[in-house]
Amino acid sequence: MTDHVPREELERRWSRLRRHMECDALLVLQNVDQFYLTGTVQDGVLWFPADGEPVFAVRKSHSRAVAESPLRQVVPFRRYSELPELIPHAGAVLGLELDVLPVSMYRQVEKTFPGSTLVDGSMWIRRARSVKTAYEQERIRRAASMLDAAFLDIPTRLREGMEELELAVRIEQVMREAGHQGLIRVRRFNMELYFGAVAFGDTSAYPHNFDGAVGVRGLYPAVPLMASRRKLARGEPVMIDIVAGCDGYLADGSRAYSVGAPSAAILDTHRFILDLNAWLEEQLRAGTVPSEIYRIARQRIENTPYSPHFMGAAENQVRFIAHGIGLEIDELPVIAPRFDEPFETGTVMAVEPKVFYPDIGGAGVENTFILNDGGCERLLHAPMEWVSV
Amino acid sequence: MTDHVPREELERRWSRLRRHMECDALLVLQNVDQFYLTGTVQDGVLWFPADGEPVFAVRKSHSRAVAESPLRQVVPFRRYSELPELIPHAGAVLGLELDVLPVSMYRQVEKTFPGSTLVDGSMWIRRARSVKTAYEQERIRRAASMLDAAFLDIPTRLREGMEELELAVRIEQVMREAGHQGLIRVRRFNMELYFGAVAFGDTSAYPHNFDGAVGVRGLYPAVPLMASRRKLARGEPVMIDIVAGCDGYLADGSRAYSVGAPSAAILDTHRFILDLNAWLEEQLRAGTVPSEIYRIARQRIENTPYSPHFMGAAENQVRFIAHGIGLEIDELPVIAPRFDEPFETGTVMAVEPKVFYPDIGGAGVENTFILNDGGCERLLHAPMEWVSV
Repeated sequence: MTDHVPREELERRWSRLRRHMECDALLVLQNVDQFYLTGTVQDGVLWFPADGEPVFAVRKSHSRAVAESPLRQVVPFRRYSELPELIPHAGAVLGLELDVLPVSMYRQVEKTFPGSTLVDGSMWIRRARSVKTAYEQERIRRAASMLDAAFLDIPTRLREGMEELELAVRIEQVMREAGHQGLIRVRRFNMELYFGAVAFGDTSAYPHNFDGAVGVRGLYPAVPLMASRRKLARGEPVMIDIVAGCDGYLADGSRAYSVGAPSAAILDTHRFILDLNAWLEEQLRAGTVPSEIYRIARQRIENTPYSPHFMGAAENQVRFIAHGIGLEIDELPVIAPRFDEPFETGTVMAVEPKVFYPDIGGAGVENTFILNDGGCERLLHAPMEWVSV
Repeated sequence: MTDHVPREELERRWSRLRRHMECDALLVLQNVDQFYLTGTVQDGVLWFPADGEPVFAVRKSHSRAVAESPLRQVVPFRRYSELPELIPHAGAVLGLELDVLPVSMYRQVEKTFPGSTLVDGSMWIRRARSVKTAYEQERIRRAASMLDAAFLDIPTRLREGMEELELAVRIEQVMREAGHQGLIRVRRFNMELYFGAVAFGDTSAYPHNFDGAVGVRGLYPAVPLMASRRKLARGEPVMIDIVAGCDGYLADGSRAYSVGAPSAAILDTHRFILDLNAWLEEQLRAGTVPSEIYRIARQRIENTPYSPHFMGAAENQVRFIAHGIGLEIDELPVIAPRFDEPFETGTVMAVEPKVFYPDIGGAGVENTFILNDGGCERLLHAPMEWVSV
């Protein structure tokens, strides 16, 4: 899995992006988008024209960029002022990633290309990236197998009185030993992730800043991520929501556990989640419409006791059931209102129906799926049933 | 260490920032700067006036923000359009963090406060944050003790034939068990860090994109971080450069090891590094000037055989010897050209003289220091001598 991205693979991505882009060229400045289009992560500036060969100007490291990327034009540079000579036909309309690009860098680009009109190209890139090639899918499959390794290991470690942190450290270790890349990338400004969440009892209902359903306490107010020192009591629900990464590509999954039997209410909730999950899985194929799936799912939930706690306790409640995933955790599309474009073959979705009760915690299951013409492929193989040890 | 930041502590930070800021108010949008000024990490907008009580408008989670922050005005909000009512006197000149703020958010602010002139306030915040209070220093000390735990553990684990990844996973585990926060924050766009670098032999000379001296290969081209599957041979230099975090605050350190004796050239290099380190340590106190220290250090190195390889092999060479560190790894000041303002009491610096030879690797030592009036406090206690096992 440490092979370099082949030229044909990049060309497939380029033609996809070119079907979406409505400008003369993109000036791609974010490292993840650059990796998608070049196969390497460097400190550089990528000029990606609507036609013809891209130019990757690289500050550091030029030699590594040449070794890793099959691009024909990888050129060294030091200062932005050199760019107009390296990119002589930058284009009248230049697309930029305005969703992530800091203002100070934007102003440098403005100064460097005074003749160009700068427009927001971020949605073209995000839409192109939302459909994965076979090469990308294979990496997401391998990331999913790291999640399986962790989910199968957890029952051997779970015990009454242990701290969330202790289980978290073990999960991190199991996944890293399986080749987990470590870093997990989030596109949205200020959103951060460190492996996911290990939530005992009411932690999964604990209020937090992340745009996700599972509550997290964290070790410190400064870093409200992954795990706290809360101890596990008998019968309490344990929610594990984790992310793995292979060669940049992520997979996301959740499973539920307890030491001793959980309450009947929690088990009922889990059964409801499994049913909903089965129904959702049936909807996952090219041609179905995310906003429509969301609408019907909400209807199915509406008259159940789970409705007020669906997708997050109290303030934590989020308005989606599934999110796209790839090089970043927050990719397109989303099973949520206003996502009205039908799924395509090659879309990858993390589907996560969950219910959390204030002060108690709850139940949830999450899988990552590759969508195809006739249905979908579930990438996680760890059993979805509640595991009591 | 999970206590909430006391009000008096925040007030000390506020008065520091107010001495630097040259605007009516700052609209603070980055989560780290918000934590510095509020004591909590939320999805929100902080209005920080030149005088009087700040207003923290919080989208998620308002209840957690109220619980964690001693601010008197923590108010819920949903949309930017509500902000003018929550912040009635936003100010004629409004400072923003233009070094990190994405263009799309900047444009939302422009629309929300059409009567305000928006200016770059990032340097005022960064300069205020460069001097740490006693409260902040204590957290950096605890982070440094996690580094010590890892450095003392390494000799018990190091063996011929092991992969970088195996040692990395062990280091990550030791520090996490000691309360490491996991996530390590970098301010600069596109710069990423995952615990640091475990570099065997020529890996520490391997070209990479990060603005640091130690080479890194990484498991995958997409994630050139921390460790690869390169195996360790007898006598090869091992460079460990790692970062720990406690309640948001980071400490940075490096130590050198080998299995069996390294070459005489590497040991000579290490002795040179230790001497240089001792000299640098003597310069660290309030009143000395970073650019001046850099100039004299370069003079000391100039006529030595180490000069061409100082602070990075070939393309990896960086133009600094030390960097500020706190909530982010890349803080002010820097021991480098153009940093002409004298150090202040409470400045925290990661000082890292290093030498790496192409195809071989090298030697380096790094410590985190708190500067005071008469000198400095070294926070790492692990021995700096070369460790052969």
